[in-house]
Amino acid sequence: MKFDVTTMIGLLAAICTTASFLPQVVKTWKSKKTKDISFLMYAILAMGLLLWLVYGIIIRDIPLIMANSISLGLAFCVLFLKIKHG
Amino acid sequence: MKFDVTTMIGLLAAICTTASFLPQVVKTWKSKKTKDISFLMYAILAMGLLLWLVYGIIIRDIPLIMANSISLGLAFCVLFLKIKHG
Repeated sequence: MKFDVTTMIGLLAAICTTASFLPQVVKTWKSKKTKDISFLMYAILAMGLLLWLVYGIIIRDIPLIMANSISLGLAFCVLFLKIKHG
Repeated sequence: MKFDVTTMIGLLAAICTTASFLPQVVKTWKSKKTKDISFLMYAILAMGLLLWLVYGIIIRDIPLIMANSISLGLAFCVLFLKIKHG
């Protein structure tokens, strides 16, 4: 892996899209309010992230595995809170 | 691009994570309620998707460009509705 500008942009992109779910988890955890959140979004998203994780494992790509494991965990948190609070 | 099982899993993963934002856009468009949605999540997500798009353009990867253009458009819709309805 070359650490040039392009790679840095890709890494920053992965960090942003992965970390983006954290504020939603924190907000929902505190407020316990999930009415405006789409269950279907997080169900499809979790399925997609799981497939990305499987894809990463097959092609043995560490950044894919790491980013999607974390995203999947955070998406499951929102999904769990959505199911719990409705 | 080889169209084997691995590629199919990757494509399905990309379709799921891209399409997942659509139910949230539809729900929010109809209800006009965004109180439970994290502004910070969609701000960081849009930044990340924009960086993925730039990355895709630099490495000339059509699937990355397509998936992230659509996701970015949908994320901007949620962000716009969040700013509009608070």
